[in-house]
Amino acid sequence: MSTSVRLAVDVMGGDFGPRCIIPSVARCLEQIPGLHVTLVGSPEPMTRLCAEHRLPQDRIRLVHTSETIHGDDAPASVLRSKRDASMRVAIELVRDGHADGCLSAGNTGALMVLAKALLGTVEGIQRPAIMAALPVAGRFCHVLDLGANVDCSARQLFEFAVMGSEAVSELTGVEQPRVGLLNIGSEVNKGSLRVREVSELLRDTPSLNYIGHVEGNELFLDRADVVVCDGFVGNVMLKASEGLVQYMQQEMRQAFAGNLLLRLLGPVLRRALRPMAERLNPHQYNGVSLLGLRGVVVKSHGNAGQPAFEAAIRQAVRACESDMPQRIAARLARCRGELL
Amino acid sequence: MSTSVRLAVDVMGGDFGPRCIIPSVARCLEQIPGLHVTLVGSPEPMTRLCAEHRLPQDRIRLVHTSETIHGDDAPASVLRSKRDASMRVAIELVRDGHADGCLSAGNTGALMVLAKALLGTVEGIQRPAIMAALPVAGRFCHVLDLGANVDCSARQLFEFAVMGSEAVSELTGVEQPRVGLLNIGSEVNKGSLRVREVSELLRDTPSLNYIGHVEGNELFLDRADVVVCDGFVGNVMLKASEGLVQYMQQEMRQAFAGNLLLRLLGPVLRRALRPMAERLNPHQYNGVSLLGLRGVVVKSHGNAGQPAFEAAIRQAVRACESDMPQRIAARLARCRGELL
Repeated sequence: MSTSVRLAVDVMGGDFGPRCIIPSVARCLEQIPGLHVTLVGSPEPMTRLCAEHRLPQDRIRLVHTSETIHGDDAPASVLRSKRDASMRVAIELVRDGHADGCLSAGNTGALMVLAKALLGTVEGIQRPAIMAALPVAGRFCHVLDLGANVDCSARQLFEFAVMGSEAVSELTGVEQPRVGLLNIGSEVNKGSLRVREVSELLRDTPSLNYIGHVEGNELFLDRADVVVCDGFVGNVMLKASEGLVQYMQQEMRQAFAGNLLLRLLGPVLRRALRPMAERLNPHQYNGVSLLGLRGVVVKSHGNAGQPAFEAAIRQAVRACESDMPQRIAARLARCRGELL
Repeated sequence: MSTSVRLAVDVMGGDFGPRCIIPSVARCLEQIPGLHVTLVGSPEPMTRLCAEHRLPQDRIRLVHTSETIHGDDAPASVLRSKRDASMRVAIELVRDGHADGCLSAGNTGALMVLAKALLGTVEGIQRPAIMAALPVAGRFCHVLDLGANVDCSARQLFEFAVMGSEAVSELTGVEQPRVGLLNIGSEVNKGSLRVREVSELLRDTPSLNYIGHVEGNELFLDRADVVVCDGFVGNVMLKASEGLVQYMQQEMRQAFAGNLLLRLLGPVLRRALRPMAERLNPHQYNGVSLLGLRGVVVKSHGNAGQPAFEAAIRQAVRACESDMPQRIAARLARCRGELL
């Protein structure tokens, strides 16, 4: 990574706050030469932790704020209240040109509302979308939207496909990401009218590598690199998958605990299952992109530990380096041109 | 089971057809004294297999048909074509009062289209729904709709809640099933307008044990006995869950195969994990109910083996014994009364 990137980091968000975020920033500053970070948050722990972790003075800047947005703050209310919240100020740094992008582990809904209001959307994009990666067979399946938009029009779903394709090709290096549209089984019916409408638009856009409909089970069969759906479906699917993995892990622990021989073999089993657990560990692919905004905004999982937060920083840096908002605008214009 | 039940069984449906279905019927006839079965299908294998498995002549009846509906037949086309299909004739037996209910392992979409056209819906129900059970911690979470209806109005979702509550209380014996409405996280927004509208209707219906919104991950936390959603969301969620379980099982097999000690311990591991595998085995809870029709219609998984098909027969028998369509009509009238 050669270019210079200025990243604003909300140090107050997430379950572990500054004591996890500041050492993560320290490590990334060591690894990424061109990176400059503006840390936004409460002065007390920030100054002390920066000294403790020896952050290079010439590559960091501290911006002090007096308020924090919490997980239970209603997204709609944060726009009017909490004008000195760390999350808001980090986004304002992007808006005002003092940072190339920002990163927060705080309340997703609040982040989306603030980013949309303060940055606005890329020209041609009606609504921004949330995109995350599911791990599949050592690769990733990126899904959007995951909850920013409850009901989406065909046009919006089309825009998600374009944004997802461009972002995934930048973030993963896959040149022509396979784009699929989430739909339900042909055995029941051919899905919603809207899905069929989007499907036609996507088929008419040759620069997208559109592979057609993808069913729920195919998310885990490495059929597509990008899967498009509305935020209600995406959110339910993602959370159900997380819930199911946790449920299966718990069942497995119980099964092993109930068998004396397997209890004795615990260390061997854990070692054998570690690669699988790592692949399924959400921290390996931490970093959710808010796409379609006039600025790079990345959201880290709230319970991200240090390595996970570092992964989110690296993702934000990549998005800044490639000037994602500009690329998305250009790609959208090109795809729209193909439809004329 | 004391009362007499007459069940029509489509023997041509499913991956294994008559050679799985007829021995399953034989076993159920042994176990359920009041059961009488009409087997509907092609004469050749049916007659031979009935003799081979010694089905009691006085409790079975054979109805010969010349056509079969396949998995790739478009549901919309089966109404006009294939008038002598085993699936259709089985439903007609219910319509004409020659059977109390019917069971098929064939094409779900075709079954729904035919059943809706031939039987009609229960008074007050706009659209039938498909309900299946997810296994959770030794209990079940029943979800509807799973794909019969792509877009549902608030009224339809309300009807699904009433149907689900009544059916689950009959099928499982839980007196006041906890009914939840699938929604997305409050951290993003409060979900769709429609979900909020249904929520108000359900809150105003005291005879339903409505527990509020349920998020995707809570499906696997034993929060609700019945979870209501539209068919698009339900279908994606169910298929994603199936895909994820298969993916994890495959990852686990690979992890064990890659470790010599664990390969040697294969039998011990399999024994320890068997209870978990059984709980997650879809065949343990085979039998999807088509609710809201003027007649009992149960769908077996297409790849159901013998014990799984027997489970579906038992479910159909329970639905017939309790006169599910009549109970649903009565319950709906009562719930509507509470809303006035």
